[in-house]
Amino acid sequence: MKPRRKRLAISEYVEGILSGNKVILSRAITLIESQLASDFDLAEQVMEHILPHTGHSKRIGITGVPGVGKSTFIETIGLMLAEEDKQLAVLTIDPSSQRSGGSILGDKTRMEKLSNHPNAFIRPSATGNSLGGVANKTRETMLLCEAAGFDHILIETVGVGQSEVAVKGMVDFFLLLMLAGAGDELQGIKKGVMEMTDAIAITKADQENITASKRAKAEYKNALHLFPPADTGWQPEVLTCSAITQAGMDDIIMLIDKYYSHMQPYLSQLRKQQNISWLHENISFLLKQSFYTTPEVKQQIKAMENEVGKGSITPQAAARKLLDLHH
Amino acid sequence: MKPRRKRLAISEYVEGILSGNKVILSRAITLIESQLASDFDLAEQVMEHILPHTGHSKRIGITGVPGVGKSTFIETIGLMLAEEDKQLAVLTIDPSSQRSGGSILGDKTRMEKLSNHPNAFIRPSATGNSLGGVANKTRETMLLCEAAGFDHILIETVGVGQSEVAVKGMVDFFLLLMLAGAGDELQGIKKGVMEMTDAIAITKADQENITASKRAKAEYKNALHLFPPADTGWQPEVLTCSAITQAGMDDIIMLIDKYYSHMQPYLSQLRKQQNISWLHENISFLLKQSFYTTPEVKQQIKAMENEVGKGSITPQAAARKLLDLHH
Repeated sequence: MKPRRKRLAISEYVEGILSGNKVILSRAITLIESQLASDFDLAEQVMEHILPHTGHSKRIGITGVPGVGKSTFIETIGLMLAEEDKQLAVLTIDPSSQRSGGSILGDKTRMEKLSNHPNAFIRPSATGNSLGGVANKTRETMLLCEAAGFDHILIETVGVGQSEVAVKGMVDFFLLLMLAGAGDELQGIKKGVMEMTDAIAITKADQENITASKRAKAEYKNALHLFPPADTGWQPEVLTCSAITQAGMDDIIMLIDKYYSHMQPYLSQLRKQQNISWLHENISFLLKQSFYTTPEVKQQIKAMENEVGKGSITPQAAARKLLDLHH
Repeated sequence: MKPRRKRLAISEYVEGILSGNKVILSRAITLIESQLASDFDLAEQVMEHILPHTGHSKRIGITGVPGVGKSTFIETIGLMLAEEDKQLAVLTIDPSSQRSGGSILGDKTRMEKLSNHPNAFIRPSATGNSLGGVANKTRETMLLCEAAGFDHILIETVGVGQSEVAVKGMVDFFLLLMLAGAGDELQGIKKGVMEMTDAIAITKADQENITASKRAKAEYKNALHLFPPADTGWQPEVLTCSAITQAGMDDIIMLIDKYYSHMQPYLSQLRKQQNISWLHENISFLLKQSFYTTPEVKQQIKAMENEVGKGSITPQAAARKLLDLHH
């Protein structure tokens, strides 16, 4: 295990971040990801200082099943943005990730060209025991990147558990990558993801795949029309694209611009709501963590679940009994 | 306000319920719906005694937007079941309902023929301050009805808030009623409802509506095929029906039978999972109730939400501060 680097003073972190120093930004992210109690106060103070300098980026979430070509897509679109002099941070949320030297190299190999571009910054997922914990770190990392001057933040989900919901709760624009597919099932796309997406991009729309991609585009458009429209009136669109031929990639960037124009009157309200929802999610998470780690509860929970499962006691009666142990 | 009836002894409730006495069943439901602390122990004891006699019914949830013809549909299908000597209880879950003499009459007028059938029992929704509280009462009412010998329990949602999710969590078969519609939007159907349904019945498929109903049937079938299949392998079906001509109503009853045949190996596991999930929902509900009613929290929550909304403090830092007030 690498020896732990010495922590900097608050001012060094803050000044480094605000001047866009990527090395100090990385160290600040490592600090806020730290699970050591001794890092906690320093991390909180760094966050407090940089918070006023946040909010000035486009926050874009990207999801899709394994095999859809997420890395290739992100690298392609990332390079297009970087070439236009946009400052792009690419983050990942993966609650199952294990931190090791290998995974950092892995990400850089995955998107090697992008990781070498001066306008880009790639950071692998925080590690953690729970999605809630990892999502907290991802949100803070996003804020640090904004304070460091990045104007586009791409957050990729690895498609595990509920991470799409967590990402949806912290981005402005949520993009779902799909394959054209052979049949008409939503190749493993989890319940609810299609309903939360702001756009669908069908990848690998090239060579023999072009016909299938057009068919899939029509099918997904029909399906999206069956969902109630968003409060903002935004109607999700379906595009096809190819990282190989670059076909459609410009259209995706234009769609994102179109989205931000549409959202101009609503964006600050959206972000405010996201923050408040996340406050209550955190409260819920902390309350449950405290409850389920109470020794008497830990001791009795399995037996109570069995009784409830068998129908010997109602769920509500069982819940009341367990809560009496906790108080 | 009606004078409160005297409570019976436990044995009177239990014997009355188990012998299928509808009058005593009604009084037992009133008891468990009671929000008076003095009724609490008696209600819990009644539930304990009848629990071993539950589980022997088909639990069917029905939802649909206002105007789809839910009452007519339920009455039609209810009478068909009652005429086949099935014992049918019809419950409603409506977290916004206000109990008054008028609402009871209202329900009986809504489904007058059915309410007069000796094999049917109709009960309006419990009232309450929260969906969780009302859903608890609905589950207990369902169990009381099963103990009283009803072999079909229909639970209707009024389509408010998250009540569909609550009903999905307590039934075996979830049926969504839809209109053919003129356009292709899911006329006000809330996010996620289409993904949780086991079947769709397009109502009012008669007269000038027949062509539109066939078109809608094809559209909804396509949309349903885009969702991942259930773990049990059940593929949701789409039927058309008319309460006026009775066309398709037999097919719906046959579909329900087909569903139960399919589900035979999975049903007890499903119900066990539902009970355990509901245990954890109740725990969450009680933890939050205790937290949000703590005086210091009540005093500070709005200010904290404002700070979080504005981005002056991260949601996670704010949550930690509030939890420190609670402990």
